[in-house]
Amino acid sequence: MSYLDKDALKVVGTRPIRPDGVDKVTGRANFGADMTMPGMLWGKIKRSPHAHARIVSINTDKALTLPGVKAVTTRADFPDIPPEKRVLGAAPANLWDLSRNCMAKGKVLYEGHAVAAVAAVSPAIAEQALDLIEVEYEVLPHIMDVEAAMAPDAPILHDDIFTAGIEPRPTKPSNIAKVVRFAKGDVEAGFREADVIIERRYTTKPVHQAYIEPHACLVSVAPDGQTTIWSSSQGQFMVRGYTSRIVGADIANIRAIPAEIGGGFGGKTIVYLEPLAYMLSKKSGRPVKMVMNREEVFRATGPTSGAVVEVKIGAKKDGRITAAQTVLKYQSGAFPGSPVQQGCICGLAVYDLPNALTIGYDVLCNRPKVAAYRAPGAPIGSFGVESAMDELAHELGIDPLKLREINGAKNGTKAAHGPTWVNIGYQQTLEATKAHAHLKTSLGPNQGRGIASGYWHNAGGESSAACHVNEDGTVTVTEGHPDIGGSRASMAMMVAEVLGVPFETVRPVVGDTTAIGFSASTGGSRVTFAGGMAVTQAAQKVVEELKKRAAITWDISPDAVEWKDGKAYPAGANAGSFEPLDLTAIAGKSARTGGPISAEVQINAQGQGPGFATHICDVEVDKETGQVKILRYTAIQDVGRAIHPSYVEGQMQGGVAQGVGWALNEEYIYDKDGKLENPGFLDYRVPVASDMPMIETVMVEVPNPRHPFGARGVGEVPIVPPMAAVANAIADAIGVRLRDLPMSPPRVLAALDQVEPMRQAAE
Amino acid sequence: MSYLDKDALKVVGTRPIRPDGVDKVTGRANFGADMTMPGMLWGKIKRSPHAHARIVSINTDKALTLPGVKAVTTRADFPDIPPEKRVLGAAPANLWDLSRNCMAKGKVLYEGHAVAAVAAVSPAIAEQALDLIEVEYEVLPHIMDVEAAMAPDAPILHDDIFTAGIEPRPTKPSNIAKVVRFAKGDVEAGFREADVIIERRYTTKPVHQAYIEPHACLVSVAPDGQTTIWSSSQGQFMVRGYTSRIVGADIANIRAIPAEIGGGFGGKTIVYLEPLAYMLSKKSGRPVKMVMNREEVFRATGPTSGAVVEVKIGAKKDGRITAAQTVLKYQSGAFPGSPVQQGCICGLAVYDLPNALTIGYDVLCNRPKVAAYRAPGAPIGSFGVESAMDELAHELGIDPLKLREINGAKNGTKAAHGPTWVNIGYQQTLEATKAHAHLKTSLGPNQGRGIASGYWHNAGGESSAACHVNEDGTVTVTEGHPDIGGSRASMAMMVAEVLGVPFETVRPVVGDTTAIGFSASTGGSRVTFAGGMAVTQAAQKVVEELKKRAAITWDISPDAVEWKDGKAYPAGANAGSFEPLDLTAIAGKSARTGGPISAEVQINAQGQGPGFATHICDVEVDKETGQVKILRYTAIQDVGRAIHPSYVEGQMQGGVAQGVGWALNEEYIYDKDGKLENPGFLDYRVPVASDMPMIETVMVEVPNPRHPFGARGVGEVPIVPPMAAVANAIADAIGVRLRDLPMSPPRVLAALDQVEPMRQAAE
Repeated sequence: MSYLDKDALKVVGTRPIRPDGVDKVTGRANFGADMTMPGMLWGKIKRSPHAHARIVSINTDKALTLPGVKAVTTRADFPDIPPEKRVLGAAPANLWDLSRNCMAKGKVLYEGHAVAAVAAVSPAIAEQALDLIEVEYEVLPHIMDVEAAMAPDAPILHDDIFTAGIEPRPTKPSNIAKVVRFAKGDVEAGFREADVIIERRYTTKPVHQAYIEPHACLVSVAPDGQTTIWSSSQGQFMVRGYTSRIVGADIANIRAIPAEIGGGFGGKTIVYLEPLAYMLSKKSGRPVKMVMNREEVFRATGPTSGAVVEVKIGAKKDGRITAAQTVLKYQSGAFPGSPVQQGCICGLAVYDLPNALTIGYDVLCNRPKVAAYRAPGAPIGSFGVESAMDELAHELGIDPLKLREINGAKNGTKAAHGPTWVNIGYQQTLEATKAHAHLKTSLGPNQGRGIASGYWHNAGGESSAACHVNEDGTVTVTEGHPDIGGSRASMAMMVAEVLGVPFETVRPVVGDTTAIGFSASTGGSRVTFAGGMAVTQAAQKVVEELKKRAAITWDISPDAVEWKDGKAYPAGANAGSFEPLDLTAIAGKSARTGGPISAEVQINAQGQGPGFATHICDVEVDKETGQVKILRYTAIQDVGRAIHPSYVEGQMQGGVAQGVGWALNEEYIYDKDGKLENPGFLDYRVPVASDMPMIETVMVEVPNPRHPFGARGVGEVPIVPPMAAVANAIADAIGVRLRDLPMSPPRVLAALDQVEPMRQAAE
Repeated sequence: MSYLDKDALKVVGTRPIRPDGVDKVTGRANFGADMTMPGMLWGKIKRSPHAHARIVSINTDKALTLPGVKAVTTRADFPDIPPEKRVLGAAPANLWDLSRNCMAKGKVLYEGHAVAAVAAVSPAIAEQALDLIEVEYEVLPHIMDVEAAMAPDAPILHDDIFTAGIEPRPTKPSNIAKVVRFAKGDVEAGFREADVIIERRYTTKPVHQAYIEPHACLVSVAPDGQTTIWSSSQGQFMVRGYTSRIVGADIANIRAIPAEIGGGFGGKTIVYLEPLAYMLSKKSGRPVKMVMNREEVFRATGPTSGAVVEVKIGAKKDGRITAAQTVLKYQSGAFPGSPVQQGCICGLAVYDLPNALTIGYDVLCNRPKVAAYRAPGAPIGSFGVESAMDELAHELGIDPLKLREINGAKNGTKAAHGPTWVNIGYQQTLEATKAHAHLKTSLGPNQGRGIASGYWHNAGGESSAACHVNEDGTVTVTEGHPDIGGSRASMAMMVAEVLGVPFETVRPVVGDTTAIGFSASTGGSRVTFAGGMAVTQAAQKVVEELKKRAAITWDISPDAVEWKDGKAYPAGANAGSFEPLDLTAIAGKSARTGGPISAEVQINAQGQGPGFATHICDVEVDKETGQVKILRYTAIQDVGRAIHPSYVEGQMQGGVAQGVGWALNEEYIYDKDGKLENPGFLDYRVPVASDMPMIETVMVEVPNPRHPFGARGVGEVPIVPPMAAVANAIADAIGVRLRDLPMSPPRVLAALDQVEPMRQAAE
């Protein structure tokens, strides 16, 4: 039987109650800050007040004499990481950069950069001790803007960073950390063929992942180095691996226990606190708890890049695109590593382009180091491309949806960044969009409708899973990545399906780093795919073992046993006649047939299916206040196979909500000295419930044949289209094209003023 | 390479620092009572003041109205367990008996039997609430003595227990729960052949395991039934399995986390508190902590049986035994299940007997249900047999050691209980005894020397183990049984040996019930054998995988790779020439060669090697006070292969210390109403450091060929010989044979008075 056959499925595709639901709604679930240990100290961080400065000296003597202070740590306690150790296994981060981001070395590179940390018996004493740490700075000129940072005479952040990705290798340090480039065909020739060329410049602001739960950890280091880390993150193995290298410990000495996570969205794929808490615990001999406040989250943890996106698209009158070109300039913050490459890929990946060129710049500036944020980099590039497509459609007088049908990627399309698409569902999202009732509704004055598409390649990678059959026939499933998007439910569902047992008899658990094999972090929309592949294989191994055990009981060959609907049956004419044995019966006798029944699987999953989406957005613009109201929003997405449809819908709705916030309101406001002026949710405005309509979702299911159940990642794609969808809707509503995010009331008013000078005069 | 070749071993047999050492000596280790949870309540138990009574009524109304009381539970909350569910998988306990032992049903059967439990916001309020629970009893006649309980007119504990093991099945209930019988040859004919027959009666008192840490647990039940149990036990899977059945929950809903354990010695192989805390947590909706005090430990948790042991041995003048017969009457306490069968087996197992008969009785009485205690049952039977052997030796005028050489079991001997011995090391312990300097020392007045032998069959059974290679090449090993006797160290050592890496790079962990496959409890001297077999297999699987990964890296066949000293080498002429790859190198690249490297193994281990020991004890008897002082003690034991010799020596010393306590001082003192008068360590006297000399150990190594490293269980055997060794030494010192334990000062004085009436007259 193939699990790709939807009609044959009994558990996958249903909507059971989530296994972690009761804990979460009753407040029993333990998040990062909920753990305590006897003798625990509180750690606090001394942070830079300057955007860019040389650290002349740090004096911690006074702090150490404050009663109740047990340890102080500075950069001097942390090892330098030699080049060959800077990347750990499959880790995406440069550990040396990460180390210097956790604790500044020589220079502070942004306001909020950590320079020292203290552990004391109470948070209040720790705070007090911070004031007693004396840091002498030599303030340096700072640079915040991405294009200013690229200028040849810009203040340079790092003496030892030379632009990567260009030949010959430069000899002069630069804030341009990397240049990436993808090309297909001859873009100049393509533009020459075009009847119409659109060339536009778009900008986006850094926005924060804005998870509800600030970073928090509790670290206990024993005198022999054995360490327990309790923390909220997107990956307990990530915490273990990064912390071990930053502090210089053996991995086996660290046990990282995943707390529940109150949102991450990519922002918890790296560490900030754990290495500092480790060092404070090591020095004090006591467990150390560190919990960021919201201000620290804003000042010192990764937002995604602010960017400039230049888009040029040429097309024939019939709508066929002849060439497309994008230039993306992404802020990386204080250390290299913006997601510009993903931006380059994802913006153009939606289309079948005969000629394409995209160039991306990873640009240092005196801002917090960027961190991954849901479909990292993709929404930025796509905001440009999808806005430009809308502008092109208007220019050509072709319906924007039609323009996408003409040029949209199909199976067999060779994408601009290289791969040839197979089993993709983009066209299906366009068909579903065209058929949707939403498009048939009419709009009133100052109301408009926009559509936009989006792409994310999703991820596979390393996952481990264990499946343990208990003595009473219930099953425990252990996964190695934190449950953020509902993986407890989806893992248990896939196992229940394979074993042929009710969902309720399968209990999923997120294991700590000693409970399960290495598993990459939850992110990139990889867990349902890779983790699901691992648990499915584990469950299949268990089925093989169950058949073997039934065969032992019946004294027949395992080949003569069939597993169906949770029971072993003798199969074939010669197998003999036996009463079927269910899981409970086999489990109860397992000691006598060979011992406990379990299977653990480790994989490096390949074959993740790309995700495509098309969104429809209706807005109403209040021309008096500039406020944009989302009237209706429909997200249509190829989800492969929805394992637990409610979670998939939730991912789609969540992505849209964050995209709308990015589109309309979210931005960092810095003063001229590079100090953040809005480090809190009162001034950094994320959408609240009253800002949003019910977001409608349409799940298009084009199964990914390389996953046993056809799953694709679904969590990232939905954040890609919203900014352009909103911008396109605003343009439709008021005839004004906004190309700079956020499209906040002041911006909308300013744009209106430009096209309606009379209005300005009348005021 | 065979790991049985001692000379080839690099890690096994060395004495590295124990991985849990620092935590334990610095007080960081968390035991049963060390865990807390927010909102936690304290549970306390209302216990019977009567040894035997019918429960007429229980009224909990007043207790529930006391402010701060959040829940009360009685038997009414617990399900009856139908006969077919009374045994769970390979579980040794009858769960229905266990359930009724945890919470009395209808009748209380011993003083201290639980009748209700309460949870309140503080221990003081919970205690206060106990007094408000009104229990009306109808007191019944009680029975404490094993032979009195066997009498036809004895008060009967259970209406529904009929003697098992005899034909025809009786129709009248009896306190004799079971009769066991082993026979070989014709014992009557054997006695007819004998020149000398010794026939003696010995008695032992119930003694407690006397672990330092009282029972403790913390249980949290969520509204959806998902449950966490933190407790100190000899088996997290045992806690999970027993609790689930007693409360009527699915096993998968319970996660049992093993705390460190402050001693168990068999006494923590069953549950007392967990089901009550579960019910209180379920009813109150809050976590409930329960911690016994020492008085409760004595009144309500299992000691081992008190017993009567009748021994009859016949021999020729040359010392050859012609027949041996033992009759063992063991108290089981309030529910069936004394270890009388083991007593029957182990006492005679030391000898090659042409004719033998042993009969055992499992006898109910109004005492706490017995629990396993180190080599359960064996020391009692062996006290009789080894004392009688000494008496026989004196009767025959043959050296007691010589008598054992003549009659001792050898390879090929068919034991009285059935098996034919292979690869046993009993004779080797006699040789080592004979050669030991201890025997050559002289003794002074009132000093004497005794020798005695002992046997324990050791255990195998179900174990799981996981071996995870970390990204930096360090290794995490997870076992499924609590570390009581040093299994963290021994498991890590075997893994390090197989992988060819330093011990320090392998970190052992005791996993909770979601972290590893089912594993039977730590007990029976099974963990180093069965757990060791599992970790060895897991490590061997890892080696196979490492070879595969090296082969992928080199693009050669895995068969052409050899693993040696922690490195992969190309093997054979055609393999090609490559730099060897060590674990770190392969681990660092594992993502690119197939994913994480781990192996989990489940086994039901067979082939445990029996353990034999011979002990030499010197005593001095103070004829004025009756005090017996242990002057010198040497324990000689076949340990198979000592994986970590220091731990093996520790086990041997600990067994001797407990045996000496059993021999000299430990006993329960009940008043005429069946109430315990000495429920504390001031009045129940265990040996303290000043009572004991340094116990010398001689490890004889006769490897068990059915274990990869030759391991045998070593923890139980050393408690078997001491009581007889001490009694034999006392007899040697003062010419008086003591046949009733404990041989405490009053008993010694009384015995002296019998043989020295003048002394009494003189006083």
